[in-house]
Amino acid sequence: MPSIVIAQGGGPTAVINQTLCGAILAARKHDPSSRILGARHGVRGLTVGNVVDLTAIPEADLRRLGNTPNSALGSTRDKPDSGACSAILAALSRLDARAFVYIGGNDTAGTLELLRQQSNSPCHFVHAPKTIDNDLMENDHVPGFISAAAFVANALVSVDLDFRAMPGIYVAIVMGRHAGFLTAAAAGWQQSSDDAPHLIYTPEKPFTVAQFLDEVDAVYARLGRCIVSMSEGVQDEMGRPLAEALAGEAVEHDAHGNLQLTGGDLGIEIQKALKSRFPKARARVDTLGYLPRGYVGVIDETDRKEAFDAGAFSVQSALGGSGSVVLHYDGHHTTPQFVPLTRVAGKTRRMPDDFFAGSNAVSAEGRRYFRRLLPKRPDIFPPFV
Amino acid sequence: MPSIVIAQGGGPTAVINQTLCGAILAARKHDPSSRILGARHGVRGLTVGNVVDLTAIPEADLRRLGNTPNSALGSTRDKPDSGACSAILAALSRLDARAFVYIGGNDTAGTLELLRQQSNSPCHFVHAPKTIDNDLMENDHVPGFISAAAFVANALVSVDLDFRAMPGIYVAIVMGRHAGFLTAAAAGWQQSSDDAPHLIYTPEKPFTVAQFLDEVDAVYARLGRCIVSMSEGVQDEMGRPLAEALAGEAVEHDAHGNLQLTGGDLGIEIQKALKSRFPKARARVDTLGYLPRGYVGVIDETDRKEAFDAGAFSVQSALGGSGSVVLHYDGHHTTPQFVPLTRVAGKTRRMPDDFFAGSNAVSAEGRRYFRRLLPKRPDIFPPFV
Repeated sequence: MPSIVIAQGGGPTAVINQTLCGAILAARKHDPSSRILGARHGVRGLTVGNVVDLTAIPEADLRRLGNTPNSALGSTRDKPDSGACSAILAALSRLDARAFVYIGGNDTAGTLELLRQQSNSPCHFVHAPKTIDNDLMENDHVPGFISAAAFVANALVSVDLDFRAMPGIYVAIVMGRHAGFLTAAAAGWQQSSDDAPHLIYTPEKPFTVAQFLDEVDAVYARLGRCIVSMSEGVQDEMGRPLAEALAGEAVEHDAHGNLQLTGGDLGIEIQKALKSRFPKARARVDTLGYLPRGYVGVIDETDRKEAFDAGAFSVQSALGGSGSVVLHYDGHHTTPQFVPLTRVAGKTRRMPDDFFAGSNAVSAEGRRYFRRLLPKRPDIFPPFV
Repeated sequence: MPSIVIAQGGGPTAVINQTLCGAILAARKHDPSSRILGARHGVRGLTVGNVVDLTAIPEADLRRLGNTPNSALGSTRDKPDSGACSAILAALSRLDARAFVYIGGNDTAGTLELLRQQSNSPCHFVHAPKTIDNDLMENDHVPGFISAAAFVANALVSVDLDFRAMPGIYVAIVMGRHAGFLTAAAAGWQQSSDDAPHLIYTPEKPFTVAQFLDEVDAVYARLGRCIVSMSEGVQDEMGRPLAEALAGEAVEHDAHGNLQLTGGDLGIEIQKALKSRFPKARARVDTLGYLPRGYVGVIDETDRKEAFDAGAFSVQSALGGSGSVVLHYDGHHTTPQFVPLTRVAGKTRRMPDDFFAGSNAVSAEGRRYFRRLLPKRPDIFPPFV
């Protein structure tokens, strides 16, 4: 009996299971003769035969599944070599797979492209997009990003009020190795230059601690507070991540060669630098870390729907060939489209230059983009201070 | 013209402005002949004459104000000495204050008790409670706590799913100097011993890094993941905060003698210890820090209402005398009551012993307490892994 195989790869998001649900329901509708199988822990589940049958899950359960954040099938960061690819392809053959739908980011798309090149079966390889980093080429934005961005924006609006009530300096360390979208997103809610984030530091622009301190000083002198949003992946002028420089030998890379950053190393260094430069100020560094990427308390409705639709579209597309589902924006509506895997696989989209105003702020163009994606700004009553 | 003066002290909460609203509306209703004045930045605003007239704010604005987190009047950690008390009392006399309502924690109540003792005017001194630490004596729980607890519980449920998808160890560092309520609260959503938080560490029980690592080891071996909730204020057997021991000379105290902890110092040490003991595991430490205490995205409805009612009750009580508003629970309902300031001022309520099961877990009794306060647990579909 033929099958459609689905898996999830890389870091989870708040809506990655919506994509899974969309794919399951579309498979039932458009290919009712196939079994629907889920591979546990991504391609790793295929090689060891760890597969769950999703064909008959009741729709009420699917709805609950969709609203549950973080990869329900489990995930992996494994990057299969040529031998592992053979084992995966053999497993897909045994399962009589018409299509392998892999939900993930650019590394996941890369794995699919490897499989596609090595395959000589009629199985189609389809990438369904997800990432909180928003760093996939060809996409206006990526399922999972809006919810994560809303988490960060809510955090910075809230902390801004905290520091209006008592002066000080606050730095939120935000996930993001190569792209600063998540770090910069809260700028979409700025109504004036008094609103947080007052400074943003992303991997796209060179970062030095000395310049950072000077820039904090200027904002703090002007407003009596300074709220900073900083990517874990900020880099020096040589392109070397500061966290790597700080962590020295201890730093780890995953199978895709990605540096395993933690906000902690960076955070402690930033905390020390602030304490030394502003010894009398309240200065606080928090690592938001994993919170934004799958927080059940802040899941955006548009994000839910787009993630679901991307999953459904991935299965419809899979019946015709291999490729990557991308979210296209035509100036009015966001719709899924289908492009060759090579346009997305292993590539990283960074914040466009016109989203920046200098090295530490978001331009009007960038703010418009983030405002379009974010939910409505909370209705904040202006403090009396 | 007589007045009722209101101020906010200490760290903010998500619902502290509900208490302000409740107080304003009750003052209009029960004492319509008085002006309603807000002192900016707590008692500091009184001494320098920095006062805002709140008498005529439209009700629609008050509703927006109530829903806006973090102290709208500004706050302070100043602890007035005898001279400063005289200046504050003189200011209250100039304003012809019938009552001074100060919204805050146990330090705020302490300031009010100092003023009351030194005063020889007919002004009444009333404490309206707020704190995310939930550490006020005489209170079943304190306005501001439920919203903060819901933030942390949502975080740990979400991260638990993240680590079901890919194995590893996670530590959330949570605010709390002396009381572990906020750190332990997420246990109220536990349905089995597989559910996070798998380990909790609070200031009430001695903490050593070596024992912590052994306990993590046991959970990680059993489940393939370990989610830990740890107070910033964890202490060694001598009662010395670990963060203080780690920070050495650099540590700061506020005017009330409170140690100014930051999760960062503790976090980096915990991160290092985990890396050394579990070199191959994914191990991540995030400092939740300021996020739980005033996060606009997670404000609990019961908390809103109780905070509002506490504010209204504080003004009604103020017309009769000085004291502290406390939340009493009779087994069915929570209602505000009025007690002498000395029963709350400067005292700290810690987690009762029967809330603990050993040193690192919450008892059934404790879980019942937190479950009663927390909102409904999110409807999580069990992962396939």
